[in-house]
Amino acid sequence: MSTSRMRAEIGEQPEALERTIDALLPRLSDIGLLARETRQVLFIARGSSDNAAVYGRYLVESHTGRLATLAAPSIATAYARKLDLSGVLAVAISQSGKTEEIVETLTWAADCGARTVAVTNGAGSPLAETAEVALVTDAGAELAVPATKTYTTQLAALAVLGLGLGADVDLADLRNVPDEVRRLIAVTEASEQLPAIVEELAGVPGAVVSGRGIAFGTALELALKIKEACYLHAMGLSYADLLHGPIAVVDAETPALLVAADSGPTLSGTIALARRVKAAGASAYGVGGGQGLADACAHSLSGPSLPEWVAPLALIVPGQILVENLARRLGVDPDVPRGLNKVTQTD
Amino acid sequence: MSTSRMRAEIGEQPEALERTIDALLPRLSDIGLLARETRQVLFIARGSSDNAAVYGRYLVESHTGRLATLAAPSIATAYARKLDLSGVLAVAISQSGKTEEIVETLTWAADCGARTVAVTNGAGSPLAETAEVALVTDAGAELAVPATKTYTTQLAALAVLGLGLGADVDLADLRNVPDEVRRLIAVTEASEQLPAIVEELAGVPGAVVSGRGIAFGTALELALKIKEACYLHAMGLSYADLLHGPIAVVDAETPALLVAADSGPTLSGTIALARRVKAAGASAYGVGGGQGLADACAHSLSGPSLPEWVAPLALIVPGQILVENLARRLGVDPDVPRGLNKVTQTD
Repeated sequence: MSTSRMRAEIGEQPEALERTIDALLPRLSDIGLLARETRQVLFIARGSSDNAAVYGRYLVESHTGRLATLAAPSIATAYARKLDLSGVLAVAISQSGKTEEIVETLTWAADCGARTVAVTNGAGSPLAETAEVALVTDAGAELAVPATKTYTTQLAALAVLGLGLGADVDLADLRNVPDEVRRLIAVTEASEQLPAIVEELAGVPGAVVSGRGIAFGTALELALKIKEACYLHAMGLSYADLLHGPIAVVDAETPALLVAADSGPTLSGTIALARRVKAAGASAYGVGGGQGLADACAHSLSGPSLPEWVAPLALIVPGQILVENLARRLGVDPDVPRGLNKVTQTD
Repeated sequence: MSTSRMRAEIGEQPEALERTIDALLPRLSDIGLLARETRQVLFIARGSSDNAAVYGRYLVESHTGRLATLAAPSIATAYARKLDLSGVLAVAISQSGKTEEIVETLTWAADCGARTVAVTNGAGSPLAETAEVALVTDAGAELAVPATKTYTTQLAALAVLGLGLGADVDLADLRNVPDEVRRLIAVTEASEQLPAIVEELAGVPGAVVSGRGIAFGTALELALKIKEACYLHAMGLSYADLLHGPIAVVDAETPALLVAADSGPTLSGTIALARRVKAAGASAYGVGGGQGLADACAHSLSGPSLPEWVAPLALIVPGQILVENLARRLGVDPDVPRGLNKVTQTD
């Protein structure tokens, strides 16, 4: 039963992804032209879009051999400092395409010699107009403040970007994503583990959310959603960063949510982390990661049966459903969390 | 009165900084040689060293005009993927110089065509031996697990790196840092605001720590210290990222610590953030930021009288003292927090 606008928008993702993939695959040749004239990628984003950028950076680096990093927008907007960005493909991501900081930073990148791409759900938005190539997602209108379908369609656009940059992957995997999202929504809502995890998270002040490599952006996005819609102190950390200090906060009051694809070179480390969290006296809850992660966790939600490179497009979905349920359990209207607007302006 | 090894090491920073600056300034010409053959910087680090890298990236970008970003070590260690790093100066930072992940990633960077620098307190360490130019800090032995003097001397090494890359700043500012740290230690310990902030933080489950631009790394480092030595859920966030979602967690139970230099283009935004935190019904505590930030906050600790580019070398010091006091107030031995070792190995 649909209980919030956020839940309805979670359910709209399979169609939104299908439309977006259909709309963007014909743009591969446009991306290819920019690819030939650049040698590295610089992402420009904030908030959920920044988490999408983290997926983009790991995808581009691990599958195209290009350096891909994240920009510091304040260099453009606060320090107004020109950098040498020749050979750089600047990729700005903003669901609305109206966040002035992001538009200004992409304009600055072009002035610094970068070629430019926009990923946005805002056709005709200032950001789309600013970029040489605009990859416009077709998520439809998103009304709930926590981004869901605009986020997963951003990931689809970044998967297309990766293909355009020559990623050594199979395009057919991307085509399988919408059906896998459809299946996962049903599986998650029918899961007996979901209410158990919701109930345990409802009783703690905070949680650590961790993942690594291509799944790291998913961990950051799940942590952001928990913060903004459930007001929990959720820390999104990579596996390695967690072990460099913050592992100290994991205890009986602070469980860990661990996110992983069902395959790939970071899965074994994530399973090992679940065991280490348990040894510290804390609970570990898994999202994805196959039977190996499920066996190492107190409770877990199934992830997608997809190759690692496209897994994040569906892996966040059980997390979105968890957040929507947890928010309502905590008495928060997930559609309009306090303190937030749909378009965020920062200077 | 010295009450912990951590407190003693905080007090050793003025001398450690003097020795380090004296040792490293003669290396400017070595750095200059690498600068001429590269056009951008890629930092490789974890934990406190990663927070030092964030200072390094803003310093290099805002004052030398070179692109400076942070590497994702798992691309080297988990994905074993080669990137095109020609024209890149890879700068690896590790206090011990023994963290295998960092040594392996710097070796990978060289194999990918990068020129290499190490910043480490470990003379003769594997990391120092791996790099073309090793900037060895002279912090002396650090025994407390939370890094203090090895962190600030890393910042000094990065300030020297910036000078070697042609930063448009005055070298004399760096020479003033040790005396300013000495003064700040005395000022902070005599402050009537310190026990008030400690008492209020002792009663909350978590806090947000924010700063922007050149001071952003200081906010991340203060948040990490609070997590590892006080087990509080401290979230380190940039001003802009905070407004994109996590501002929702700020409330009467979750104060904000705001960190800023006394000048620079991000100060006004930090003061505005203090007002926004107050409007959300939460307490804001300032570290640095001059009278403007102090006036906007419930309590505050004075920061250094230093230009923005070197302010982080001293700005963390009131935060270190705050953490040491808060840990003891909470019954934690700051020298040996649970779950942590001095040298962290991650695969």
